[in-house]
Amino acid sequence: MFSVTVRDHMMIAHSFRGEVFGPAQRLHGATYVVDATFKRTALDADNLVVDIGRAAEQLHAVLAELSYRNLDDEPDFAGLNTSTEALAQVVADRLAERAQDWGLDALVVTLHESHVAWASYERPL
Amino acid sequence: MFSVTVRDHMMIAHSFRGEVFGPAQRLHGATYVVDATFKRTALDADNLVVDIGRAAEQLHAVLAELSYRNLDDEPDFAGLNTSTEALAQVVADRLAERAQDWGLDALVVTLHESHVAWASYERPL
Amino acid sequence: MFSVTVRDHMMIAHSFRGEVFGPAQRLHGATYVVDATFKRTALDADNLVVDIGRAAEQLHAVLAELSYRNLDDEPDFAGLNTSTEALAQVVADRLAERAQDWGLDALVVTLHESHVAWASYERPL
Amino acid sequence: MFSVTVRDHMMIAHSFRGEVFGPAQRLHGATYVVDATFKRTALDADNLVVDIGRAAEQLHAVLAELSYRNLDDEPDFAGLNTSTEALAQVVADRLAERAQDWGLDALVVTLHESHVAWASYERPL
Amino acid sequence: MFSVTVRDHMMIAHSFRGEVFGPAQRLHGATYVVDATFKRTALDADNLVVDIGRAAEQLHAVLAELSYRNLDDEPDFAGLNTSTEALAQVVADRLAERAQDWGLDALVVTLHESHVAWASYERPL
Amino acid sequence: MFSVTVRDHMMIAHSFRGEVFGPAQRLHGATYVVDATFKRTALDADNLVVDIGRAAEQLHAVLAELSYRNLDDEPDFAGLNTSTEALAQVVADRLAERAQDWGLDALVVTLHESHVAWASYERPL
Repeated sequence: MFSVTVRDHMMIAHSFRGEVFGPAQRLHGATYVVDATFKRTALDADNLVVDIGRAAEQLHAVLAELSYRNLDDEPDFAGLNTSTEALAQVVADRLAERAQDWGLDALVVTLHESHVAWASYERPL
Repeated sequence: MFSVTVRDHMMIAHSFRGEVFGPAQRLHGATYVVDATFKRTALDADNLVVDIGRAAEQLHAVLAELSYRNLDDEPDFAGLNTSTEALAQVVADRLAERAQDWGLDALVVTLHESHVAWASYERPL
Repeated sequence: MFSVTVRDHMMIAHSFRGEVFGPAQRLHGATYVVDATFKRTALDADNLVVDIGRAAEQLHAVLAELSYRNLDDEPDFAGLNTSTEALAQVVADRLAERAQDWGLDALVVTLHESHVAWASYERPL
Repeated sequence: MFSVTVRDHMMIAHSFRGEVFGPAQRLHGATYVVDATFKRTALDADNLVVDIGRAAEQLHAVLAELSYRNLDDEPDFAGLNTSTEALAQVVADRLAERAQDWGLDALVVTLHESHVAWASYERPL
Repeated sequence: MFSVTVRDHMMIAHSFRGEVFGPAQRLHGATYVVDATFKRTALDADNLVVDIGRAAEQLHAVLAELSYRNLDDEPDFAGLNTSTEALAQVVADRLAERAQDWGLDALVVTLHESHVAWASYERPL
Repeated sequence: MFSVTVRDHMMIAHSFRGEVFGPAQRLHGATYVVDATFKRTALDADNLVVDIGRAAEQLHAVLAELSYRNLDDEPDFAGLNTSTEALAQVVADRLAERAQDWGLDALVVTLHESHVAWASYERPL
């Protein structure tokens, strides 16, 4: 199995609902450093999983729709806790739509919320 | 599949038995930067794999039982080489006991012994 | 010259005023991975610049006063752009108050806002 | 499942053929920071997946055959795009030959081409 | 003293002349992960050293003139060893021209050539 | 001012004396990831601060004298706390002896003891 990963980031505000979140129930924010991994069992005619420039461009487009926003105000997330793992799925699903014709087998998205915590979501394509 | 990872560290002394270890047969030590990854196929009612604070707390408790010790003197490791990969299993198994009611599917523990070497152990839960 | 650095982090929401900030004028947020460097020309009687545990504890206390908050609502920052470099000074000045009896010569605080951007403030003590 | 990873690097020149590569069709180069991961379901008699020194030595030998070279001039790669993912397979296959008697189950090789892009190849052993 | 740093990268081919360089006398290449640090004694009216977006844009423009090229063919470097430290000065001097009206006091450019080696050049502005 | 940095590591056991050290008074150990920075105001005839291979070789030789040892048993450190900052000075002074004819102006040695703590010592040459 081959994979290619590209890294970008987004900066958002949000808050959580539920006692388990403690002080994170207050409005705060995060930088998510985002790694998108594209998986494929065989390389294409150019000897690639995906062109790194093309992959970076599409990841950037997905993150631009989320970045510099208060996620508490986004209709897509109404009533949902936008946890790191839940956002990893959102980014992966949106990226999967853009990459559905790329001949990929799977996609993994990892969001690093600090130097000591990160979360991932993996899905087939 | 979703995952959440938290990072912490421990500092220990130990020595190895066996010619393959060369100078590492002498008493020396290591900082292990430890990543614990919790895996789950679906998110819980709070949209989480596990609360990051709770995960960090339990990992810290497991590492506190090992850190600032000479592992050669610990009865649990008598007659055993406490290699990085063997310690990854020890940390994973002890953490699994603490996390057995968390609804998880698997656990991965990675111990980084330097900027150029690390080891992992993955187990179901 | 000797130095000791400890790392921690904080997660905040804020917005900026001024056209130069573009989309960052909207309410958003950031994780700041924070490095505090303590400088001293000679070591103390224990052969230390500062005990790493004590340094980490005081840095954590300073960050706890800022973390999980919307800085736009904090009276201390009313009318100010809480840029990464400006927050580096806030953290450094607050830490300097706590460390004023530690025999230090200088303090540097670096805030990493992503994997591609960070800012620092250095001051004497 | 246990794994051990060692890190090294190589520095090469090359060019790509195909419009998708844009400016990378010109002769340029790359540093690849290379992670080789050795996987095994059970530890050996020394409580190891593989001795880290031995693993590092063999990875270094494989990379020495590629490093400080213009890959466009290497007969092994005639007519091939030496993409990051294709080179990950080359390194993995060459390392697999050297490690075939080590009792391993699988091998993963990751080549980091920058702080924002990397590629991997995983194969059984 | 305040500073802001932005990170980007470039990928080049080159060779060195002189026995001290050993195998690096052959045509090879490198990825340089480049950090540009802008220093200023006081913040501007927006509470900034420099807008991070603007700094990133100018660094990217400087690197685009060097990236995806064989430096041995560039007239600017004829007869010169394009060592990491020499290239750090080239990037710093070119960036200084673009930033001369930004009210800065100094500029530092660091080029990381691998996970185990990097070089810097600092100059006043 | 120009600088070149090379990275290596060492693994040691030791203990500390003094109540401030808490559990670190017990025999334990550390991996120190060591960065040695060589500074020079002008480049040499090869356009270098120092050849990276030569610098790496000398740093490795200095660390080999300390690594895989219990520093509590080393006569050089009898009665001394081998804190991270004190060891940074030891490494810097030993490296300075080896580099005294290299035309350098200063030397900085940084020892990383974990992902959240490191210490440095800078001296002229």
